[in-house]
Amino acid sequence: MTLPPDDLPSPTAAARRIGDWVAGLQRSDVPEPTAAVALDCIVDTLGVALAGTREAATRLAADDARESYAVGPSRLLIGGRLCAEGAAFANVAAAHVLDFDDNSYAGFVHGSAVVVPTALAMVEAAGGTGGDLLTAVVAGAEAQYALAEAVGNGIYHAGWWTTALFGTVGAAAASAKALGLDGRTAADAIAFALCGTGGLRACFGTGAKPLLAAQAAANGVQAARLAARGLTVPHGVVEDPRGFARLIAADHFDPTALDALGRRWRLLAPGIDTKLYPVCLSAHAAIDAVRDLMAEGGLTSRDIRAIDCRVPPVVAANLTYHRPMTAGEARFSLPFAVACAMLHGTLALEHLDEAALADPVLRQAMTCVSMTVDPWWNADPDRARTAPEGAEVSIETMEGERFVRFCASARGTVARPLSAAEHAAKFRTCAARAVGLDEAERLHRKLRQLEAESDLSRLFDFTHHAGCS
Amino acid sequence: MTLPPDDLPSPTAAARRIGDWVAGLQRSDVPEPTAAVALDCIVDTLGVALAGTREAATRLAADDARESYAVGPSRLLIGGRLCAEGAAFANVAAAHVLDFDDNSYAGFVHGSAVVVPTALAMVEAAGGTGGDLLTAVVAGAEAQYALAEAVGNGIYHAGWWTTALFGTVGAAAASAKALGLDGRTAADAIAFALCGTGGLRACFGTGAKPLLAAQAAANGVQAARLAARGLTVPHGVVEDPRGFARLIAADHFDPTALDALGRRWRLLAPGIDTKLYPVCLSAHAAIDAVRDLMAEGGLTSRDIRAIDCRVPPVVAANLTYHRPMTAGEARFSLPFAVACAMLHGTLALEHLDEAALADPVLRQAMTCVSMTVDPWWNADPDRARTAPEGAEVSIETMEGERFVRFCASARGTVARPLSAAEHAAKFRTCAARAVGLDEAERLHRKLRQLEAESDLSRLFDFTHHAGCS
Repeated sequence: MTLPPDDLPSPTAAARRIGDWVAGLQRSDVPEPTAAVALDCIVDTLGVALAGTREAATRLAADDARESYAVGPSRLLIGGRLCAEGAAFANVAAAHVLDFDDNSYAGFVHGSAVVVPTALAMVEAAGGTGGDLLTAVVAGAEAQYALAEAVGNGIYHAGWWTTALFGTVGAAAASAKALGLDGRTAADAIAFALCGTGGLRACFGTGAKPLLAAQAAANGVQAARLAARGLTVPHGVVEDPRGFARLIAADHFDPTALDALGRRWRLLAPGIDTKLYPVCLSAHAAIDAVRDLMAEGGLTSRDIRAIDCRVPPVVAANLTYHRPMTAGEARFSLPFAVACAMLHGTLALEHLDEAALADPVLRQAMTCVSMTVDPWWNADPDRARTAPEGAEVSIETMEGERFVRFCASARGTVARPLSAAEHAAKFRTCAARAVGLDEAERLHRKLRQLEAESDLSRLFDFTHHAGCS
Repeated sequence: MTLPPDDLPSPTAAARRIGDWVAGLQRSDVPEPTAAVALDCIVDTLGVALAGTREAATRLAADDARESYAVGPSRLLIGGRLCAEGAAFANVAAAHVLDFDDNSYAGFVHGSAVVVPTALAMVEAAGGTGGDLLTAVVAGAEAQYALAEAVGNGIYHAGWWTTALFGTVGAAAASAKALGLDGRTAADAIAFALCGTGGLRACFGTGAKPLLAAQAAANGVQAARLAARGLTVPHGVVEDPRGFARLIAADHFDPTALDALGRRWRLLAPGIDTKLYPVCLSAHAAIDAVRDLMAEGGLTSRDIRAIDCRVPPVVAANLTYHRPMTAGEARFSLPFAVACAMLHGTLALEHLDEAALADPVLRQAMTCVSMTVDPWWNADPDRARTAPEGAEVSIETMEGERFVRFCASARGTVARPLSAAEHAAKFRTCAARAVGLDEAERLHRKLRQLEAESDLSRLFDFTHHAGCS
């Protein structure tokens, strides 16, 4: 007779262990360095989300949310208020639409894009404070990163889109924290999220990518709400022979990764990579190498005949568009990224306008860029660890000179973190697109003092504001 | 340079082929035998859904839907009206909560539980007719079954819960039909549904199972609505190396299964198994064998010492509860099913009450039942085809006599279909639990004449009704 899967003692089940940890987490348990990174994540994510409110996919998500979801207490950054699930849906789309939000190598996940707006919507609905928001973000982030680390990054390379897969879990955990669920009930929420989660990288380069993250967030909120209402779910859904580890991760599952919850903070190690450029992180090292080589060699774009980028397989698998026609495609294009760096000395949001994309000078520059995939990139374990999305860039000048630069980690990654001033500048540039520079600066000051906020519902009350109302 | 996945010519992509077929389907294209099966599915599913409105998991789903979703034109069978997404969520939970809804071996899918309530909610919202509902149900059902057949039933055996996986696609297809989307846009809806779909069988035996089906339906509705608003999605998401066939089905994907869309109707072949008993289909053959042996041998429960059931591995994998403590667990318990048949001569909804489950006579009878898994069951291809969830039942009497019966297919399956009278009796029994016998009979007459209905919004207007309002 087959034994019931529930025979797995539930305190040892991954979903239960995570649920217990989430339920027990207090703000005072979070060490200051971890809290500081979480605050950076909140500020950076809300900045890029405000910039993202100007995008068509965000309007589409918000229009759909307003028609489908009930009116409620949680603010849409693009304007209006809905129930937390609807606000999470619309705001996560805004946070991820520009692909300018942060990443973590714990799971190869855009960790904050799903968790931060979901936590904000849920804490707003619960009438919580800035401190509650920070705690919910830490709970959601650490829960998703720990589970992702237990499964390993192989699933991303296999083709799963881990942001949607684990984002649902992070959203459920953050929501469970915001709702104040106990450990068993939080585990029910996490288990339900795991039972239904999915996500294919086949959606990259299109508006489906942010909307899939948005749907993952809404499903995570729903999981927590259903658990809060009394839904019970087998806690052994990760370990079950018909469960998450077997079906998604080919049985790669290391439960000891969960032992580190609350002891090693994934927000610190492996840490969070903040983007300086609004395109796929896989293009960043090449952009930096081109910028540095041109600065050091005193080169202008007119001096350059050709640029070749030697990259690891994962970079080539992400950057699939060699002649991008839309901004969505351009975010996953190495020739676009390198041509921008060559022509403009950087890559900023304004370079992703359709008019900029059609510029014949840019199109011509893109033809000078080639990408060589190095299948042996990761043969050296040190390189696999230190340069998982690195690039070796070789510039050939009109004069026949050759300049070569290896960039292991781009600016903004954990190895080369942004300064506080760079963080602030990125926020201001992003937020100003939606609310103007003065409001952006005012909001930045408020967000940097998040834990002084007792009423999150007024955080985005602007005097002059095109978007939020 | 890696070529962009969109280089797959989109007219040949599975999502596009299904989308084109769904968009082109007219009521007049559906042959009468297919329409008759679809009508049976609609009537049977709405009957079990009405019975399901009395269950706690349905109340939980409806309460959550009322809080999260906008008020709208689509009726909740349990009462009230919401937007189509909210109504689909609540009504799919009702349709699947009793595990009394139909199955198909095209995908090993509870096909109608997701598609029928979703189509109803969407056609109501669109102001459509009974004929529109039938067409949307056929579109959703055939789309999900064709795709499931292309992938094969191995994924169910691996542990995927195909009802949630393909239900999202069926819901998206039915919704696309109800919205009147063109082929390209319907393909966007199907592709978005595929990008985010998931479902683990680890949820079996709990309230999470119907709620996962409900979430799949809501996600499918959302996919169609986002596509209608202009979201475009790569149509090659099934074939993409980071796509559905590779990640879910280990590259088992036979695109010729899609050639048969509109030529071979899966509603006819392999057809739809209607349940006569409100438990997992895996238990049905054993119930029938016990009923038949007892009737033929003139046995009462007092005559029986022991019952052993030899079953294929899939039956053992589904029926994991040997001493069920809840109705949810009892639906996945062979000892429960066989003990009921032995004591009551059948297994009906009232045997799943918690009081009935606790009856010491039943608990004692369950100890007489054993299950022997036959790992070689499918070695004979004929048996694999004709008796995938069959049972060989051996009854030993107190007198030491032995009666043996092999049951390949249970009553209600395609091989042994229910009569019209049995279908009607099942509907009346189910619906009467929610609306009383008179209203159940009136509703049955209306549903059997579905295509005469011009206003679906009044279909469930009852004069006396505890649930619907």
